[in-house]
Amino acid sequence: MRKIEIYDTTLRDGAQSEDVSFSVEDKLRILAKLDEFGIHYIEGGWPGANPRDAEFFKQALKFKMKNARLAAFGATHRASLTVSKDPSIKAILAAKTPVVTIFGKTWDFHVREALRVSLQRNLDLIYDTVSYLKKKAPQVFFDAEHFFDGYRANPEYALKALEAAASAGADCLVLCDTNGGVLPGDVGKIVREVVERFQTPVGMHAHNDSECAVANSITAVENGASQVQGTINGLGERCGNANLISVVPALQLKLKHSCITDDNLKKLKDVSRYITEISNLRHFKRQPFVGDSAFAHKAGIHVSAVLRHPETYEHIRPDLVGNYQRVLVSDLSGKGNIVRKISDFKLDIDPDSPKVLEIVKDLKQLENQGFQFEGAEASLELLIKKSFGLYRKLFDLIGFRVIVEKRKEGEEPLSEATIMIRTPQGIEHTAADGNGPVNALDKALRKALEKFYPQLKDVSLLDYKVRVLTAGKGTDTNVRVLVESGDGKHKWGTVGVSANIIEASWQALVDSIEYKLLRG
Amino acid sequence: MRKIEIYDTTLRDGAQSEDVSFSVEDKLRILAKLDEFGIHYIEGGWPGANPRDAEFFKQALKFKMKNARLAAFGATHRASLTVSKDPSIKAILAAKTPVVTIFGKTWDFHVREALRVSLQRNLDLIYDTVSYLKKKAPQVFFDAEHFFDGYRANPEYALKALEAAASAGADCLVLCDTNGGVLPGDVGKIVREVVERFQTPVGMHAHNDSECAVANSITAVENGASQVQGTINGLGERCGNANLISVVPALQLKLKHSCITDDNLKKLKDVSRYITEISNLRHFKRQPFVGDSAFAHKAGIHVSAVLRHPETYEHIRPDLVGNYQRVLVSDLSGKGNIVRKISDFKLDIDPDSPKVLEIVKDLKQLENQGFQFEGAEASLELLIKKSFGLYRKLFDLIGFRVIVEKRKEGEEPLSEATIMIRTPQGIEHTAADGNGPVNALDKALRKALEKFYPQLKDVSLLDYKVRVLTAGKGTDTNVRVLVESGDGKHKWGTVGVSANIIEASWQALVDSIEYKLLRG
Repeated sequence: MRKIEIYDTTLRDGAQSEDVSFSVEDKLRILAKLDEFGIHYIEGGWPGANPRDAEFFKQALKFKMKNARLAAFGATHRASLTVSKDPSIKAILAAKTPVVTIFGKTWDFHVREALRVSLQRNLDLIYDTVSYLKKKAPQVFFDAEHFFDGYRANPEYALKALEAAASAGADCLVLCDTNGGVLPGDVGKIVREVVERFQTPVGMHAHNDSECAVANSITAVENGASQVQGTINGLGERCGNANLISVVPALQLKLKHSCITDDNLKKLKDVSRYITEISNLRHFKRQPFVGDSAFAHKAGIHVSAVLRHPETYEHIRPDLVGNYQRVLVSDLSGKGNIVRKISDFKLDIDPDSPKVLEIVKDLKQLENQGFQFEGAEASLELLIKKSFGLYRKLFDLIGFRVIVEKRKEGEEPLSEATIMIRTPQGIEHTAADGNGPVNALDKALRKALEKFYPQLKDVSLLDYKVRVLTAGKGTDTNVRVLVESGDGKHKWGTVGVSANIIEASWQALVDSIEYKLLRG
Repeated sequence: MRKIEIYDTTLRDGAQSEDVSFSVEDKLRILAKLDEFGIHYIEGGWPGANPRDAEFFKQALKFKMKNARLAAFGATHRASLTVSKDPSIKAILAAKTPVVTIFGKTWDFHVREALRVSLQRNLDLIYDTVSYLKKKAPQVFFDAEHFFDGYRANPEYALKALEAAASAGADCLVLCDTNGGVLPGDVGKIVREVVERFQTPVGMHAHNDSECAVANSITAVENGASQVQGTINGLGERCGNANLISVVPALQLKLKHSCITDDNLKKLKDVSRYITEISNLRHFKRQPFVGDSAFAHKAGIHVSAVLRHPETYEHIRPDLVGNYQRVLVSDLSGKGNIVRKISDFKLDIDPDSPKVLEIVKDLKQLENQGFQFEGAEASLELLIKKSFGLYRKLFDLIGFRVIVEKRKEGEEPLSEATIMIRTPQGIEHTAADGNGPVNALDKALRKALEKFYPQLKDVSLLDYKVRVLTAGKGTDTNVRVLVESGDGKHKWGTVGVSANIIEASWQALVDSIEYKLLRG
């Protein structure tokens, strides 16, 4: 049992995924989530190459980390400048992170063809950059780009490049399979050779082009590596990076190394889903450890055995990673979740009531329609309250109309909403404009209600997410809207689903307001 | 270089995937596709356990295979019957396949807890079943269920089970990681031990619960296994089986073993997509070797290098597996990407024109606003055409109005759009309703234009995606809409960004129509 350091690069390499684009706000939320999860190092981006990353680091400085150390990424300094004059190196230092990760070339072919400098000059660039940064930052990691290809082409030169970084004081030599082409057999041999040769700790940074990134990371650890770099859900350019969601439980549960606490490991599924949602991607059912199908049993012979002894067809206990067993014919797992929610919500409800099973059934039907209550727990709480008669209606909709009108090309359209509602205190008929139809409707609804419920003045919409559910039929499809609201003290999420985006938004907005008013 | 036999179980294990259900017709189509692809063995199903599989085998008898041999799957005979009386064994023989694959228990825990017979009785079941079938069928393979767990728990017994099958005449001892929990280090050691001990050829059947199924299959071959069992795209129960779409090219291109012909390997992407379509699943962009992103380059530094020397960031030549290189446009991109796009789009434009740099600048600004041209290449092509005067306007918007009206709680709102446009052929003023505001606007716009451009009748919306860009400000934020359209022959993607979702959708819809009309 050794301590294996986990280095997450979701915010940099992960952001290279096709279709993934994180805003600064997204990146800050992911940072907080990964810190809480217990990741040791979080690479925030490349401040010298990307203005958005520079902005992220500025904001991240204000964030107080509980567990993780933040890393800024960059290349060895430009051959045409001295290291201290290189604006990219300056940008890295301006990020003021406790860790700096510098990648350098170790494959002679790349030095000649991509970097276009002499082999010796590249070694100098590595040495000069690492030793300069080592004076300014507490920890400097060296990412040995294309190390495995380089080693196979010219092992002597690849090792010289590591030697340059090590002698300059690098705190970790990270062997990168940049093209993702290496297979576990070679990884084992090459990592062992490096570990035996250097005093400096060795890390592994694998890409998944051969579908071996997780196995290669594990193999590297089995051969002496003490740091694994990867991303949540294997996000990343091309086929992605090593998936930390699979690497961490394998190291911890199977090889008995220590990465994060056992309690945090139980958040594995939650962390995976959180990043999927922020990435605006779909959950992958067959995803190892955390997918909905990962512990789902369909074959009849499996089901009867697995109900007696889960280990007959389950490689680990699903609760260790926050997942659970599902039997696809008759799903008994739902009830436990609802009982847990009732206790989470502190509702005064008998968990043995037969109504709990009705809620499980209702939820399944709603989920079939596209509802999703992860991230929309306020809607779930309302649903449970409604089942148990703990809900009272505070207003009725008489009607609304939303109009979007465009009268000239190149100009933004005007959006207006009218609304009429009935409350126990009277009828209100009002209107508002907005930046778009949902914004106008939200403003009109609040305007109508604030007269009777002034406490709504504290409520604001923090986030609004739209997901089109069934691809393949154009705009004629179901839409799920997730809304996050807050009143300065609390935050809550609500959900709506409809073929009509205005209706789906309306459902989520109404849930948000009802939740606030019922909570008082 | 050895010949490695590929054994496909998409039709049996693959059909256990959650959400996948193959009709007999589907199975026959997959059979034909895999036969043409050059797979050596195709497991058709379990005739003794599943009536649909029995029907499939009846039909498959009529199909003349070009390359593959069909296999029927089943268990060792029931302990309560003699082998010749067991109806499952009879059903297997009735399928009249040249290959029969029989699974048996090799983990003592499973013999006791799932099969509930004595350890010796289980060895007899294996021996009797294999030797009986061996008299009736040309080839009998033995699937050693839970072999790796069994070996770790009681190596002596696990090897005895193999010995029973081998001495009964089994043609291959297939080591199954049924629970998918084993890691490559153990696979290497255990496979080598078995290969050294037995004359009979050894196979590997891996599951992906640890995200190591492909690596484990490759490791087994590196340690002497000569058959790999798996499924197309890694379909299968829980997290799926070893993905043959990744195993085959790794064995053939990297380890230089012989599996299928080089010409057939070029069909890899086609075969993968064909099975995805029949499975009614989505193509996975990051899928190794065959995904749309597998050879897609986003980072600016990668792009300039990869255009000079693809091997700088590609582990294999994409055309060897029927895939191709793509250059993505993102805020990390530079001039090289645009030059590449001009050539992809076959535009008659001088790549050295100073306008190219202007486009790069414009793109950066648009990307800051939230535009994203990955997946919206038609919008990018229009943008480049506009810069170079290759665009002409085909209609002007005079105005549109979209109304969403709800008059009763619990009812879906009504959506209606009116539109007025001017074309060189005249003015059109019309209206349409729809499932939601965007659907209504799309219908109204097409209705107005189809009168003048009847070719638009072939165009349909295939996908519609919405992304809210800046979290943290509620509904008062920018929205990006991505639209995918098709006309039966081609597909194209367009993008729009605005604070107003209707305006963003409008931009993407207009781009889609202009792109189609300018292309002719």
